[in-house]
Amino acid sequence: MSGDFDPPITAVREAVARALAEDLGVLGDLTSTALIAADAAGTGHFVARRPGVLAGTAAATEVFAQLDPAVTVTWAAGDGEPLSAGQRIGTVNGPLRSVLTGERSALNFLGHLSGIATATNAYVRKVGGGKTRICCTRKTTPGLRALEKYAVRCGGGFNHRFGLDDAILIKDNHVAVAGGIRAVLERARAAAGHLVKIEIEVDSLDQLNEVLDCGLADVVLIDNFDVASMKKAVGLVAGRLVIEASGGITLDNIAEIAATGVDYASSGALTHSAPALDIGLDIEIQL
Amino acid sequence: MSGDFDPPITAVREAVARALAEDLGVLGDLTSTALIAADAAGTGHFVARRPGVLAGTAAATEVFAQLDPAVTVTWAAGDGEPLSAGQRIGTVNGPLRSVLTGERSALNFLGHLSGIATATNAYVRKVGGGKTRICCTRKTTPGLRALEKYAVRCGGGFNHRFGLDDAILIKDNHVAVAGGIRAVLERARAAAGHLVKIEIEVDSLDQLNEVLDCGLADVVLIDNFDVASMKKAVGLVAGRLVIEASGGITLDNIAEIAATGVDYASSGALTHSAPALDIGLDIEIQL
Amino acid sequence: MSGDFDPPITAVREAVARALAEDLGVLGDLTSTALIAADAAGTGHFVARRPGVLAGTAAATEVFAQLDPAVTVTWAAGDGEPLSAGQRIGTVNGPLRSVLTGERSALNFLGHLSGIATATNAYVRKVGGGKTRICCTRKTTPGLRALEKYAVRCGGGFNHRFGLDDAILIKDNHVAVAGGIRAVLERARAAAGHLVKIEIEVDSLDQLNEVLDCGLADVVLIDNFDVASMKKAVGLVAGRLVIEASGGITLDNIAEIAATGVDYASSGALTHSAPALDIGLDIEIQL
Amino acid sequence: MSGDFDPPITAVREAVARALAEDLGVLGDLTSTALIAADAAGTGHFVARRPGVLAGTAAATEVFAQLDPAVTVTWAAGDGEPLSAGQRIGTVNGPLRSVLTGERSALNFLGHLSGIATATNAYVRKVGGGKTRICCTRKTTPGLRALEKYAVRCGGGFNHRFGLDDAILIKDNHVAVAGGIRAVLERARAAAGHLVKIEIEVDSLDQLNEVLDCGLADVVLIDNFDVASMKKAVGLVAGRLVIEASGGITLDNIAEIAATGVDYASSGALTHSAPALDIGLDIEIQL
Amino acid sequence: MSGDFDPPITAVREAVARALAEDLGVLGDLTSTALIAADAAGTGHFVARRPGVLAGTAAATEVFAQLDPAVTVTWAAGDGEPLSAGQRIGTVNGPLRSVLTGERSALNFLGHLSGIATATNAYVRKVGGGKTRICCTRKTTPGLRALEKYAVRCGGGFNHRFGLDDAILIKDNHVAVAGGIRAVLERARAAAGHLVKIEIEVDSLDQLNEVLDCGLADVVLIDNFDVASMKKAVGLVAGRLVIEASGGITLDNIAEIAATGVDYASSGALTHSAPALDIGLDIEIQL
Amino acid sequence: MSGDFDPPITAVREAVARALAEDLGVLGDLTSTALIAADAAGTGHFVARRPGVLAGTAAATEVFAQLDPAVTVTWAAGDGEPLSAGQRIGTVNGPLRSVLTGERSALNFLGHLSGIATATNAYVRKVGGGKTRICCTRKTTPGLRALEKYAVRCGGGFNHRFGLDDAILIKDNHVAVAGGIRAVLERARAAAGHLVKIEIEVDSLDQLNEVLDCGLADVVLIDNFDVASMKKAVGLVAGRLVIEASGGITLDNIAEIAATGVDYASSGALTHSAPALDIGLDIEIQL
Repeated sequence: MSGDFDPPITAVREAVARALAEDLGVLGDLTSTALIAADAAGTGHFVARRPGVLAGTAAATEVFAQLDPAVTVTWAAGDGEPLSAGQRIGTVNGPLRSVLTGERSALNFLGHLSGIATATNAYVRKVGGGKTRICCTRKTTPGLRALEKYAVRCGGGFNHRFGLDDAILIKDNHVAVAGGIRAVLERARAAAGHLVKIEIEVDSLDQLNEVLDCGLADVVLIDNFDVASMKKAVGLVAGRLVIEASGGITLDNIAEIAATGVDYASSGALTHSAPALDIGLDIEIQL
Repeated sequence: MSGDFDPPITAVREAVARALAEDLGVLGDLTSTALIAADAAGTGHFVARRPGVLAGTAAATEVFAQLDPAVTVTWAAGDGEPLSAGQRIGTVNGPLRSVLTGERSALNFLGHLSGIATATNAYVRKVGGGKTRICCTRKTTPGLRALEKYAVRCGGGFNHRFGLDDAILIKDNHVAVAGGIRAVLERARAAAGHLVKIEIEVDSLDQLNEVLDCGLADVVLIDNFDVASMKKAVGLVAGRLVIEASGGITLDNIAEIAATGVDYASSGALTHSAPALDIGLDIEIQL
Repeated sequence: MSGDFDPPITAVREAVARALAEDLGVLGDLTSTALIAADAAGTGHFVARRPGVLAGTAAATEVFAQLDPAVTVTWAAGDGEPLSAGQRIGTVNGPLRSVLTGERSALNFLGHLSGIATATNAYVRKVGGGKTRICCTRKTTPGLRALEKYAVRCGGGFNHRFGLDDAILIKDNHVAVAGGIRAVLERARAAAGHLVKIEIEVDSLDQLNEVLDCGLADVVLIDNFDVASMKKAVGLVAGRLVIEASGGITLDNIAEIAATGVDYASSGALTHSAPALDIGLDIEIQL
Repeated sequence: MSGDFDPPITAVREAVARALAEDLGVLGDLTSTALIAADAAGTGHFVARRPGVLAGTAAATEVFAQLDPAVTVTWAAGDGEPLSAGQRIGTVNGPLRSVLTGERSALNFLGHLSGIATATNAYVRKVGGGKTRICCTRKTTPGLRALEKYAVRCGGGFNHRFGLDDAILIKDNHVAVAGGIRAVLERARAAAGHLVKIEIEVDSLDQLNEVLDCGLADVVLIDNFDVASMKKAVGLVAGRLVIEASGGITLDNIAEIAATGVDYASSGALTHSAPALDIGLDIEIQL
Repeated sequence: MSGDFDPPITAVREAVARALAEDLGVLGDLTSTALIAADAAGTGHFVARRPGVLAGTAAATEVFAQLDPAVTVTWAAGDGEPLSAGQRIGTVNGPLRSVLTGERSALNFLGHLSGIATATNAYVRKVGGGKTRICCTRKTTPGLRALEKYAVRCGGGFNHRFGLDDAILIKDNHVAVAGGIRAVLERARAAAGHLVKIEIEVDSLDQLNEVLDCGLADVVLIDNFDVASMKKAVGLVAGRLVIEASGGITLDNIAEIAATGVDYASSGALTHSAPALDIGLDIEIQL
Repeated sequence: MSGDFDPPITAVREAVARALAEDLGVLGDLTSTALIAADAAGTGHFVARRPGVLAGTAAATEVFAQLDPAVTVTWAAGDGEPLSAGQRIGTVNGPLRSVLTGERSALNFLGHLSGIATATNAYVRKVGGGKTRICCTRKTTPGLRALEKYAVRCGGGFNHRFGLDDAILIKDNHVAVAGGIRAVLERARAAAGHLVKIEIEVDSLDQLNEVLDCGLADVVLIDNFDVASMKKAVGLVAGRLVIEASGGITLDNIAEIAATGVDYASSGALTHSAPALDIGLDIEIQL
């Protein structure tokens, strides 16, 4: 499979530049500059301290590329691959000062993004061979949306719309203001160009029936349905719309939810509450 | 107490601008633009869904300020205050389009930063009346360091150095390259200006004694010491240095660690693995 | 109708800042600074020299807002409104220096964007009551895409995807590489999330039939079809897909094309070759 | 002749970065990423679909340089050269994904700038061996002034001042405020440094005589003079000033105007209303 | 006299933003945040510690405007005005924290720019009623050219070209490469538009004669001429060219040089070596 | 000694970009583009016209790197080295156009920074073998702080805090507001993290005694003490605090001050009033 795992290059570049700016300030690494000779060399091995799924190698590479072109970074594992505890992931080699200076920024990216990939993948494995796709939301860490959505893909998940500007998602407030489901869908369809999809959130099977009667939506979001209602919803829709389930999706119930046949199950926790994966850098100094 | 809780204004402004750029793209909120009349007004109430400690109000205010000056935001609670489940935190009022467009970005900041404040505060409360200060590290989410360090302060914690450029922190690799503890400290002291502090990490009581003999460090970082060794370290130092403990600090052992008398206990998990605090926006529409 | 004419605010702000930077350089308006007293006031009236459709008022207002907050700009006509030759469009009032300094930048925006709105509207009026929507492409002037797409909407047209990142448009090269229409559509569907539309270009009715058999596309682009073939295509599709016609769309044939019943007719010339609408600023000086 | 055709490198770089940002957004080319293997290679040939004059090769090269350093671009024709319909202009070779992703941005620059060069050159050829130079104005597309002025030079034209900050151009309003031609010229001369030229616009031969009497201007702009008056103006000036004619300059009358002996004839339409030159990219895929 | 003293607003804004970024970093003013209550108010008086000429008030105002809109700044003296030792120049009033935080940045601008104005004015006063204008060069402090050239004007001086892009200045190397004075001037005239001035540097009266014979230059730069040769040069030129003298211009010889009748005397020391004018801020605290 | 002389790379890069933007504008070097063939080569030798201490080579190298990668720059002397009048410092070689275009920007950096290094070094040499370190302040040229502080180090000096955010420096106003020395120090200590140093300014020996009694400061700044009082201060402090002397430090009294035994003597004049060192570029043209 080709393009799925391509990291968002521009976003990586900008996020790394910001991370280095934060960490280096104007004066750079006071400690390494004072204590490490400019010509000392060193090697560091990225090592997973716990099992998980890898994401963020492009960002880690970029950290050293921006810091010092004399540093080389090579990877023994790629984004999206499973990691076992103690596994060597990659190697960074070059001037010791630069290796030490970039260490924390590189690890911050690897830990954060691999944490998201790992959390996503736990859901994906629970679904197993089922058709339900795991999907993230716009509940991302400010400034890192493109990287986090990429990490979700590394974990085997899918992405919802990127932001407010690339699809229409109609929620209860929009329905209330427009005066009902048919009115809001007609208004949306009239305004939307032919390359913009329309999704509408419903809270009940009655609302779902109303959406189906209109025939104007592409996707329906069934929010906070219990499993039994999800099953009914799948039956009612009968393939006429894509169905996304959200609200209360957990590792405990995802298998059962997937069994209902919904197309997507989406969860904000994948991006806003995944703990970092513990990845370290073991340094070898050439004295 | 005055200045402790001042949010980092420039960092807030920039982080909010990035968050809005991510979410709005070039075309803005397709849904609200299509479905909400330009002159419709609305009110939203920020509500804590779970108990915790608040952080991020300045960022949430800034989201709406950047989006639409016609929106007003007022707060019933301030950063650093404890929240109970269901508590109303603040109110946003203005053009309904703008309220809906800014909702997710504002909540992403509030949830992320309050999550960090809440996690930090859990440690702080365990310490209780003890002298040990809870302290974060440089293991922050890329691009959000200033905001996250501020959230730690909101939770009652303290900050370690901001980045590589504002203090010297000597680790094992620096010691190895310089040829020992005395050599590395002398070199550091010669290079450092009179307003730069020097901290050195030690792995054993022997190393700690060596540091004490030199009399050149300001702070010692005792890394991965067990509690008994921490107690011994505090006795050995006898107030001559600030002592920071790191490695394996958890909610389970923090009270015991605090009882040893170390000055600081630092943990990366406060910033890299705190789950978001669930905060929502309840909208009232003026039809 | 509400949101259709909302100008892209951030893009306007940035484009205006660039225009002023180009025109003012570091030293500003040498002529007005040298020759006009700082306290002289003046009024300018924006006047259409030829008939057309207005677009760009937000950019013109922004020019003076960035230049000098003491200048006020008011509009007698709004974006999307038809203009007759000699009609007064709006008024700028304030320090004469600032009025003269901003004149050219404001007119450059008004002329360029109204030119596009005018060209688009000529097509729209030819379609008359027909269902075919006039649509622009990605053949825009570098750096002005959001403003030009907005100007197309001001002229009564619709927008195709904004850029490469918000829909999938499969062209002949993609088909060739993937090994045929079914193969390429299956691959696209597997990769695309549920909020991304898929459009595919076809060159013949045979290809169109193949697309219809697959049932995997949302939109079909019939490229360089003659009018008779367009009519056949509409019959074949029978409402199962949105049909967009492109290639050789002109003011002379658009009415005939619209009569075939295609949903969209798209043309790059709307944005890359529309001549500027002649709009001037008539200055009144208060001596 | 050496430096005339040097493109404005920094402006090219910035304009290309903006164009790519517009087209790629955060997620990049969804279609090519999904459908083209990362290791597929391809070649594209830039081909003029109609005759014209080439401009914009540096921008097209820069598009691919910023996108993917693995792409090479070579040119068979240079900026300023005449093109015949069907002529191959250059070749782009490298990863097929990158070739397809950059195609539209590269063509947008080539089409827009070659359109301006072509329009300018049509005037220049009408002047033939005459001494009158064709000259553009500040009526440029916002954000592209440096590139458009360069395109005018590619077409054989000359540039007026770049912006408000690099010469003094006195118009009717400045004269009115200052209290007459002599007053305004004296004031301008007193304020201007020794490296700033002064041009003054006149509407009549009487005003021209007044300017000549003062002996303080470097250039006179005769605005909306008919051909007979232009001839008289040239006689009156007798080489003492540079004469620029503006207003109503068209392809139909430029030969006659040139015959009057004015030094420059300037037209805003060269930059604000030149249609794009139709240039395409013919792709060859290595399957 | 009107526009001469207008500060370069955009350059001021950017320079101030950079200065504040340098001084505040991410964390801001640690001292004032920790020690001054948020609601404490204060007043500061800008006071000249030594006599001089004022420049930089717009930058000082901008410092506080960017820092805190609650601060007001008023001026008792304007740019270009002479200052006596001990004179109160202006007042800053508002939150004490902000007054203290902005103090150093504001004083750095005032001291640096007033230093340049003072140095320039010393030359101007030596010239007295003579016609020779004092003029700066491109030997400016990187990043502050617009502000420094403005400070020169505040001191009564004039500006040479702003940068390499707004006039042609031919030096010995250009002459050597082009093959002589006539060749280089012809080439320059052919390439230059009608609003670009041409200045040529000469090292001898012979070269000056050659320049005069060509009749193609606007300005001649006589470099390192002694006073006797300057006088001869003025006689030879006889008003046909503007004459600028450079090289070895000092306060000691400027009166004698002015007496030769050269139009301009230029010196890099005005901008690269003027000592700062000592200006302080006397704080009054409202306890 | 290794790291002391590392220039601040990011700050250099940004300062050079700004300097080139100032000097080149949009159109670049009109003169060289018009008069020098694109394929002409040249060599320039940086030569010290007067004795001094070198600083700024990284900035000069960066000027040409940003301008044209075909230019190579090599250095015969390094930052921090003494220069004699007439000494060749380095060589720039490549396309003559680029050598001439970058000349002034490179020299502006070299002259300004070497001027500061030279001024600093004059103080350092006066101290001779004494223990007093020469130290700069925050009285730097806006936008160049990192480079100027680096130049001070090149001259053998030390740096005070970089900005307001990396140490606490308590001055008279802070003391007054807080209600006395003990109160202010206690408040500062409570707010400061364990890696932030605290310095306090005193105006008298009484105040110094009060500071010593508190035992809460790291550094004391004795401001405007006469030499006798400095000596007493050193005796009183007896090594318990670092002592910095400021106010009225001159080349004339620095030796005497150093003899008192203060640890640091700081002076704003090092950065705000050092005259540029005269460095030129001697060009050799390959005709």
